[in-house]
Amino acid sequence: MNTFSIAIHGGAGTLLKGQMSDEKEIAYKSALKSALDKGYEILLGHGHALDAVVEAVKILEDSPLFNAGRGSVFTATGNHEMDASIMEGFGLEAGAVSLISGIKNPIKLARDVMEKSGHVFLAGEGAKQFAKNLGYQTEEDAYFYDALRHSQWQEIKGSQHFQLDHQTQKDSKYGTVGAVACDTFGNLAAGTSTGGMTNKKWGRIGDSPMIGAGNYANNATCAVSCTGNGEFFIRGVVAYDVSCLMEYKGMTLAEATYEVIHHRILKLGGEGGLIAVDTNGNIAMPFNTEGMYRGFQKSNGDQMIAIYKE
Amino acid sequence: MNTFSIAIHGGAGTLLKGQMSDEKEIAYKSALKSALDKGYEILLGHGHALDAVVEAVKILEDSPLFNAGRGSVFTATGNHEMDASIMEGFGLEAGAVSLISGIKNPIKLARDVMEKSGHVFLAGEGAKQFAKNLGYQTEEDAYFYDALRHSQWQEIKGSQHFQLDHQTQKDSKYGTVGAVACDTFGNLAAGTSTGGMTNKKWGRIGDSPMIGAGNYANNATCAVSCTGNGEFFIRGVVAYDVSCLMEYKGMTLAEATYEVIHHRILKLGGEGGLIAVDTNGNIAMPFNTEGMYRGFQKSNGDQMIAIYKE
Repeated sequence: MNTFSIAIHGGAGTLLKGQMSDEKEIAYKSALKSALDKGYEILLGHGHALDAVVEAVKILEDSPLFNAGRGSVFTATGNHEMDASIMEGFGLEAGAVSLISGIKNPIKLARDVMEKSGHVFLAGEGAKQFAKNLGYQTEEDAYFYDALRHSQWQEIKGSQHFQLDHQTQKDSKYGTVGAVACDTFGNLAAGTSTGGMTNKKWGRIGDSPMIGAGNYANNATCAVSCTGNGEFFIRGVVAYDVSCLMEYKGMTLAEATYEVIHHRILKLGGEGGLIAVDTNGNIAMPFNTEGMYRGFQKSNGDQMIAIYKE
Repeated sequence: MNTFSIAIHGGAGTLLKGQMSDEKEIAYKSALKSALDKGYEILLGHGHALDAVVEAVKILEDSPLFNAGRGSVFTATGNHEMDASIMEGFGLEAGAVSLISGIKNPIKLARDVMEKSGHVFLAGEGAKQFAKNLGYQTEEDAYFYDALRHSQWQEIKGSQHFQLDHQTQKDSKYGTVGAVACDTFGNLAAGTSTGGMTNKKWGRIGDSPMIGAGNYANNATCAVSCTGNGEFFIRGVVAYDVSCLMEYKGMTLAEATYEVIHHRILKLGGEGGLIAVDTNGNIAMPFNTEGMYRGFQKSNGDQMIAIYKE
């Protein structure tokens, strides 16, 4: 049987040891473990990588700790605009949504776009109409309300500043969640979801819903989910860049992800990280920031849940 | 002095010789020539590739013949939703807009996003607010009204069908405009603009505003603008794929663009074409459809304006 594995992330940024209470650290790790366990259980039961990715991301979206779904940050107008994308590596099918509000699990809607819309990328009110046609219920604002998120917004509301979530200090962190998986059939999938940036305006779209930038999967190479300052990740076409370095230059997953995160994107000025898996179940989780909420579980027993640099 | 050049396109599709009147063919070629002349004049005066691209695309947007700007097709609700993107190859700066209405020249707004927003990609009402802050005037619906476009929409309005513009027959054509240029300094730029698909709904975003998919520029490799069935071009990350084949596999511009259009995207089911330029001023304009409105002009005197296969 193929080695199978799953990796997840909950965002990268200036996460310095000692700045977070032990309780909070435990809460983050516990949420990561829940997501990882759920995804791994699906793979263990010979489920599809796509299902494992969606279910893992849903758990991270349902947690108020991460900037996606329920924990999404506030935009400049006090709303929530969420983005998500998904791709599977067998048929290179993909789906994405952007600038949506009121949807509990954007990753599920991204999958429905892939499977039921005849399109890849839907945004805004139109995407919401598509969801409505499928019978999606919309959540009240209260579901997305979080005191910390609200105070983060109040601090910079009315200013020209925007912040990449989540931050306890004034320096930036990049709030996104994501999962990548390789199933027992050797199929890959990647999913990414985000609530964007605090005080975000003008209908800004980051890399998370952009296939090739923040998310990509291809059974010929790898599945990738990114987190970082999205503008740089778009300009670097980061997720597909990893795939191309493997396909066209013959790099391994570890080599390609290192090259992109520690050389190519850094040269552009991009900060963040990514998680990636190949069809042998190998995992790479490089980041060029101080920390990244992350974890993985492989069928050979290897596992890790971590926040800071090792 | 560096060989400089510019290439433009006005969409690809099932353009069969004899299906179009001589008058119409002359009108298309004349519009293409105007755009090409304008861009080339800028390059000849040692202007920047970015300016040449923007000015050439603006002329195509201002023509009712092409599905972009003034000639944009009707959405399912009888409106116009336009997308555009731009990228320059020196600093890899990029800008894009999606789902905007009432803006005469979306390519200009994409450039303003790149230069003035601090972001790469803005969409919908938010993007329009950004434009308003910069003093953009919005055009009345009448500016975008065209009898042919309206009748194309009336034919499929209320149905589940959507059409990739522009078509005289029932088969599909892919309406997009674009320009790529290499200036006397060896800098590259690419710009793409579209009115989407007739009867488009749900806030669908195609490849045109997606950096890496429908548009890309990098002085290390090439500048690319695509036209085709956008969903496939997104999944194939087509524009960046050309760049990667050059950078990582050492292919020439001609080899890389041929590989992507005639093998990789075709394998996915993608139909369309692209225009591309490298830093030696070489031009490639492959397409896997019956025709593509296209033209180029090089400083060595080579030039072409064509619609059908040679």
